[in-house]
Amino acid sequence: MLKGIPSILSPELLKVLAEMGHSDEIVLADGNFPAASHSQKLIRCDGHDIPDILEAVLELFPLDSYVEQPGALMKVESGDNVTPTIWEDYKKITKVDLEMMDRFDFYERAKKAYAIVATGERALYANIILKKGVVSE
Amino acid sequence: MLKGIPSILSPELLKVLAEMGHSDEIVLADGNFPAASHSQKLIRCDGHDIPDILEAVLELFPLDSYVEQPGALMKVESGDNVTPTIWEDYKKITKVDLEMMDRFDFYERAKKAYAIVATGERALYANIILKKGVVSE
Amino acid sequence: MLKGIPSILSPELLKVLAEMGHSDEIVLADGNFPAASHSQKLIRCDGHDIPDILEAVLELFPLDSYVEQPGALMKVESGDNVTPTIWEDYKKITKVDLEMMDRFDFYERAKKAYAIVATGERALYANIILKKGVVSE
Amino acid sequence: MLKGIPSILSPELLKVLAEMGHSDEIVLADGNFPAASHSQKLIRCDGHDIPDILEAVLELFPLDSYVEQPGALMKVESGDNVTPTIWEDYKKITKVDLEMMDRFDFYERAKKAYAIVATGERALYANIILKKGVVSE
Amino acid sequence: MLKGIPSILSPELLKVLAEMGHSDEIVLADGNFPAASHSQKLIRCDGHDIPDILEAVLELFPLDSYVEQPGALMKVESGDNVTPTIWEDYKKITKVDLEMMDRFDFYERAKKAYAIVATGERALYANIILKKGVVSE
Amino acid sequence: MLKGIPSILSPELLKVLAEMGHSDEIVLADGNFPAASHSQKLIRCDGHDIPDILEAVLELFPLDSYVEQPGALMKVESGDNVTPTIWEDYKKITKVDLEMMDRFDFYERAKKAYAIVATGERALYANIILKKGVVSE
Amino acid sequence: MLKGIPSILSPELLKVLAEMGHSDEIVLADGNFPAASHSQKLIRCDGHDIPDILEAVLELFPLDSYVEQPGALMKVESGDNVTPTIWEDYKKITKVDLEMMDRFDFYERAKKAYAIVATGERALYANIILKKGVVSE
Amino acid sequence: MLKGIPSILSPELLKVLAEMGHSDEIVLADGNFPAASHSQKLIRCDGHDIPDILEAVLELFPLDSYVEQPGALMKVESGDNVTPTIWEDYKKITKVDLEMMDRFDFYERAKKAYAIVATGERALYANIILKKGVVSE
Amino acid sequence: MLKGIPSILSPELLKVLAEMGHSDEIVLADGNFPAASHSQKLIRCDGHDIPDILEAVLELFPLDSYVEQPGALMKVESGDNVTPTIWEDYKKITKVDLEMMDRFDFYERAKKAYAIVATGERALYANIILKKGVVSE
Amino acid sequence: MLKGIPSILSPELLKVLAEMGHSDEIVLADGNFPAASHSQKLIRCDGHDIPDILEAVLELFPLDSYVEQPGALMKVESGDNVTPTIWEDYKKITKVDLEMMDRFDFYERAKKAYAIVATGERALYANIILKKGVVSE
Repeated sequence: MLKGIPSILSPELLKVLAEMGHSDEIVLADGNFPAASHSQKLIRCDGHDIPDILEAVLELFPLDSYVEQPGALMKVESGDNVTPTIWEDYKKITKVDLEMMDRFDFYERAKKAYAIVATGERALYANIILKKGVVSE
Repeated sequence: MLKGIPSILSPELLKVLAEMGHSDEIVLADGNFPAASHSQKLIRCDGHDIPDILEAVLELFPLDSYVEQPGALMKVESGDNVTPTIWEDYKKITKVDLEMMDRFDFYERAKKAYAIVATGERALYANIILKKGVVSE
Repeated sequence: MLKGIPSILSPELLKVLAEMGHSDEIVLADGNFPAASHSQKLIRCDGHDIPDILEAVLELFPLDSYVEQPGALMKVESGDNVTPTIWEDYKKITKVDLEMMDRFDFYERAKKAYAIVATGERALYANIILKKGVVSE
Repeated sequence: MLKGIPSILSPELLKVLAEMGHSDEIVLADGNFPAASHSQKLIRCDGHDIPDILEAVLELFPLDSYVEQPGALMKVESGDNVTPTIWEDYKKITKVDLEMMDRFDFYERAKKAYAIVATGERALYANIILKKGVVSE
Repeated sequence: MLKGIPSILSPELLKVLAEMGHSDEIVLADGNFPAASHSQKLIRCDGHDIPDILEAVLELFPLDSYVEQPGALMKVESGDNVTPTIWEDYKKITKVDLEMMDRFDFYERAKKAYAIVATGERALYANIILKKGVVSE
Repeated sequence: MLKGIPSILSPELLKVLAEMGHSDEIVLADGNFPAASHSQKLIRCDGHDIPDILEAVLELFPLDSYVEQPGALMKVESGDNVTPTIWEDYKKITKVDLEMMDRFDFYERAKKAYAIVATGERALYANIILKKGVVSE
Repeated sequence: MLKGIPSILSPELLKVLAEMGHSDEIVLADGNFPAASHSQKLIRCDGHDIPDILEAVLELFPLDSYVEQPGALMKVESGDNVTPTIWEDYKKITKVDLEMMDRFDFYERAKKAYAIVATGERALYANIILKKGVVSE
Repeated sequence: MLKGIPSILSPELLKVLAEMGHSDEIVLADGNFPAASHSQKLIRCDGHDIPDILEAVLELFPLDSYVEQPGALMKVESGDNVTPTIWEDYKKITKVDLEMMDRFDFYERAKKAYAIVATGERALYANIILKKGVVSE
Repeated sequence: MLKGIPSILSPELLKVLAEMGHSDEIVLADGNFPAASHSQKLIRCDGHDIPDILEAVLELFPLDSYVEQPGALMKVESGDNVTPTIWEDYKKITKVDLEMMDRFDFYERAKKAYAIVATGERALYANIILKKGVVSE
Repeated sequence: MLKGIPSILSPELLKVLAEMGHSDEIVLADGNFPAASHSQKLIRCDGHDIPDILEAVLELFPLDSYVEQPGALMKVESGDNVTPTIWEDYKKITKVDLEMMDRFDFYERAKKAYAIVATGERALYANIILKKGVVSE
């Protein structure tokens, strides 16, 4: 643990966030996402909800202001009668507009991300991709 | 995640608990414990409290019934005016008697443990060693 | 070994099952399947029959309810005069409908699976692919 | 699998048995033995009983005829009211005299063995050490 | 060395033969074959002739009875005035019909084999590919 | 780079600082210190002065308040006519009392440190050991 | 550190510069460049400005005199109202003409470079690719 | 060093030459060749001239007599006013005809070679590819 | 294979022999020697007799002329009624005097050797240690 | 190769020299020294004489001025009638006084050195240890 850094961020996650540069992407994946099979670098945060991790990540990690949608969510599949209320939380925390993607397009984009964080989030359709911006101060 | 297994247990922690045998020890270390430098095998559970992990571990992990004290706690250092209330939680969860050890003896015993779980527990003197028993059913 | 977990599941197999997410696949391969050459991750369970492993796996592993056939079997090759009775056991254990695939299509699908479990099953045409579902409780 | 070789022996166990030479030792450990923490080389045979493995091993592996007791068992601890009937099986299968060792001496000897085979044997006091002899035919 | 197993088979070769499944191929390569550059897994048997290794391998390794030619030889290149008498030995030892392949087709097939055994065989055109069959007893 | 974190700290140094616990030590070594041969974990910060790194480290890293001297300096060797003015900088930055150690005792302590940071500091006798304290907010 | 070699060059950077040959390229990347995700070999120089590294590198590293533009810069993106003054520094230091490339073409070329040096440079559009020439004296 | 083997050949180079088979190629690269970025296996012989290495290699390494040109040189680039006198040395040492290749074709062929030997040769256009023949005595 | 080098010597054995220096030792171990458990570096030559390997090794490898007995044999154990005729072969091939050592002293010396060559030699008491001399021509 | 750096120094040797700090030692070993078995880090310079390497090394590497003898030579063994003339070369090149050590003391010191450079030097008693000093300009 370090002073002033959220303790939910593991040393390895800190390192990965710091290694990323402008336009690199990270996925916060819910507990059912096939994270191990789709990741180039896998960071496990079992047992945590995504909003807690998202808030902690965004204390350190700027979102890309060069694009209109610096992140993405997975669309509800047709036939699946779900309204993911967690998306409201994400909008409050990120304060940005997010792209809506089909499930398998989301999977393909996740495969190219710099890292996937495997959480224990129980909400469905809770996966979120974040695109890193420029650190300028 | 798996059916019927607490999702706070990471795949690697599950594997380590299953690999351990009679008399092997595991340390649940608080957020300030020097876990990386004292562990033979390190498992990170950043951001979690020990009681949550302890309860989950004990659903799968039997304590050693061949010894009187199948685990240990770290004594308050003389001069440190603290009464760790978390010990009461541990007694309720484990239902066993635990050995009280001096700080540096505890460190030495932790070095020989099969694994150390690095948690984000904020309480002081919250480290606990567990000795595995026999699975007999 | 752990309390309440079938002891036929090795620590590594437990870890792999827990790492898998929605739509990842695992192959239970019979003793003659070319498992080592077709696997991305190989787990050996030499000397065990598939029904025993299948029952143990399904205690922890949900099948995918988003698809009609959450698994697959290998069709008998034309000219091979065999009626695999083990398929009846599989249907009793899995309680789902399974896709029938040609031998070489099965091989290609196995290559993309998250893991292959190499068993000692002696029955012919006994290989089975399982697709993981969502853990929701 | 290979012609004429018991299929319970994994490819890695076959390799280890072949690598061993005169006076090297292997431990067949029961399901509660702390095998992972005591082994220089660990071979997992989860879910199998020791007598089945022992019979298969001895088809290929000669016991040392240069010593009087080419193997060892772990003595029942004083206070533990058990009579391990599995020892009778071992005597029938090995047809040799075996040394009786105290638990912690047995642990120390196991640490020096070339390999430990972690089985799923449920019987207590079922661990057995085997010393390899000379292949002369 | 092990009882009843030809001592010319190294522990690693034993392991590889046991890992292979139905339809996997192994190449026994002569001393001039570019084995290191064409193999996915290389096993060196320097100084040995192929017929000795072939006989030992076939004691344990079934040839594929599902295909008409469970193996292959490399054709004499046009212009090379050689009649490889070693092929007669191979036919006596294998008792099967073998496919005749052009040199560069043979190279491509060797690249996909599970393993290549690099021998010290001095005869020209002495390379042989073997396809594994089903172990059924 | 990350928001609010000094950019002189590399991703790996951030990770190491976060991994350390109460009483673990880190060495900031000058450009002539035999860092590679004395470190268990080596982090290179070539071309940087120690005061810049020290200030950045202490923004995140608490010094141990359980001991009177949570760090150490290397004494000037007898016969070496140097008065290291950099020590004044260190006292202003750290605001703590530091132990003075003989050169070879310092080397031995450095060998046991969790990590050594190899800087490009040109001042002589500029090495400093820091002992981590408890993160409590 | 070595006599006569700029101490800002880490041992690993020295090694990489020496390993490179005629026409190999190296990227000096600013603090926001996605260096970790685009590099075949990554060398971190956190906290340093590019002009300091560039001067040090060019003391040892010849630029390619077989091509007209032995290096490249990233063009300002349309809509981004920036005039990178650092380019003037680069021209003074390199004394060569540099190719101007679109952002994503620059990224693709960086992926093929022998190495990327991740600096802490704060100026925007400060990335520079250098092509190695012939050492002939 | 060994009796009767040129001491300029390192143990690793000896091993690589012995591993190669009929038609495998090795590149002796001059000091400016981009050897590290083009090699599948890199062997460094810094500070040595190619003729010395070539003579030593050919004491042990047969050139391919199945092709007319068992090796290749890199053509002088148009506009580069150089007549490489070292080619005469190569012809005396190899006593074979060598193919002349364009620079970038040569680079592509070098990438497929079994190994590249990085020498310190100062002559320009001094790179040479050698194709291994059959050892038949 | 290489011109003029015995083909029984594998590429790796060649490398090891060349790496050894004055006073380094190598063990040629018979088929029952516990080579894998006693070696720092293990080289397998399964299926070969020691005299064939010994002759090949000594073509390249000088014995130490600075000591009176540049090698060693293992004494027959008291009670073992064997007269190893293979020692006569060794004396003819090596032409030097060899030290006679007790079995367990031999084992300890073998553990310190640079490498052990595991052969398939069937003769008993056939192990031999060779000490490398100076290459001076 | 790099501008102004002797090309006899390999990239790896450059890196090692730069990593070393005050009081670290490096051994330049002759062609018969048991370098591979005595080194913590081995750098091969086969085929080169020590004086050439020594001159190149000392262009970059300062000798320790804090000790009277910043290096060492191996004494001629009693009975060996040799006067190593190469020592005169060393004294001209190093311009310092060197300690004379018995052969086996020299071996022990070499084992603790940061690196050993294995050369092809043919002169006897040509090994030399160098202790690094402070880089101060």
